[in-house]
Amino acid sequence: MNHQNDLYDYPRPAVAVDCVVFGVELDERELKVLLIQRDNPPFQGQWALPGGYVRLDESLDDAARRELAEETNLTDIYLEQLYTFGAVDRDPRGRIITVAYYALVKLGDYLPQGYTDARDAAWFSVDEAIRLAFDHDCILAVARERLRNKVGYEPIGFELLPPKFTLTELQNVYETILERALDKRNFRKKILSFNILDALDEIQKDVMHRAARLYRFNSEKYETQKQNGMNFQL
Amino acid sequence: MNHQNDLYDYPRPAVAVDCVVFGVELDERELKVLLIQRDNPPFQGQWALPGGYVRLDESLDDAARRELAEETNLTDIYLEQLYTFGAVDRDPRGRIITVAYYALVKLGDYLPQGYTDARDAAWFSVDEAIRLAFDHDCILAVARERLRNKVGYEPIGFELLPPKFTLTELQNVYETILERALDKRNFRKKILSFNILDALDEIQKDVMHRAARLYRFNSEKYETQKQNGMNFQL
Repeated sequence: MNHQNDLYDYPRPAVAVDCVVFGVELDERELKVLLIQRDNPPFQGQWALPGGYVRLDESLDDAARRELAEETNLTDIYLEQLYTFGAVDRDPRGRIITVAYYALVKLGDYLPQGYTDARDAAWFSVDEAIRLAFDHDCILAVARERLRNKVGYEPIGFELLPPKFTLTELQNVYETILERALDKRNFRKKILSFNILDALDEIQKDVMHRAARLYRFNSEKYETQKQNGMNFQL
Repeated sequence: MNHQNDLYDYPRPAVAVDCVVFGVELDERELKVLLIQRDNPPFQGQWALPGGYVRLDESLDDAARRELAEETNLTDIYLEQLYTFGAVDRDPRGRIITVAYYALVKLGDYLPQGYTDARDAAWFSVDEAIRLAFDHDCILAVARERLRNKVGYEPIGFELLPPKFTLTELQNVYETILERALDKRNFRKKILSFNILDALDEIQKDVMHRAARLYRFNSEKYETQKQNGMNFQL
């Protein structure tokens, strides 16, 4: 293609952003995802990922944050770019390319509310988040896989826990993110072998019996282990 | 943003694709990247990643393949999406969002030639690929890091070697991709511990003395190890 031609000689696709915000509830072992109910066609009344068009004067990251806030009232969420979806027929309105983002949050901290073109906003179990608008089933599937893979090379999950936690609590978080049960003995052996936790001389409070030992994530140890090429795959 | 409004109510960014094609030469330990010399402003005469605008009737993947072929004459390269770069000021011509792709090829198989708006196309050592047009220095840096990380969870590099290879040849490929020297003993111990290679009852031919044993990549073993959560980090 000849770059000498004026940019505006070419018909342009529209560019959108969509956000896959995963939520974890510490007492539950169910991975949730934040959805909005569409107020307008196409797919009116159907559930979809929050998102919308990118403005000319904002970066993609800014657009994702703005759209998430506008449609669900959630702010201060660290969104990471996931993948850009650009199949020719993914949107019945015409050619729309969407840059998808994803995030993982502690569910209790965020109470979504539907705004602007979202009739409603709510947390869904990922398994119940089906028949979404557009290609959002596909975007969600890619995000779930990315999240599972990420556990293997980054200490995700720790920011969902209180600073001091039991290994059972940590296992719950891992099981929720990985969407599968883990063997308790193997989990403990493996997670301790990563050498990124400090065992504290403290035990759980507010439990009647069999109070478990508390642990703390040690980010310095983690950085050292990461530089040594340690893999955190369970 | 209100989806009821017609799509065309909004000014649209232009959307481009850019390709980071890495090349490895088996006898050399230098990672190369394919660049084109721009024939037109902006950045006329400067080197850049091959790329161009996405057409309304083609997917992003198709656009990347087409632009790479048009500008460098290289075809049949498996391009994987890297990241989408959308800083507001990344292109002096206006708002252009680019979806970057990357690939790794055996350098000897591909003889690039400049076409259409590329005055020239050539392989550069990654360390000499500096002061590129637009934000292409940044895109290249992201691609180098992605390539290095990928070694840890996928058996990349094997497709660059002949079906039977020595551990020294394999180490050369890994050192090229990782852009650092590896200790020979540690490399051998680690790569064999992954249990993804078959040691053959054959030795190198055409060498006068100290012919080394030949190995073959076993994709079945690899799949098993991957399902077991094996990490291939060196």
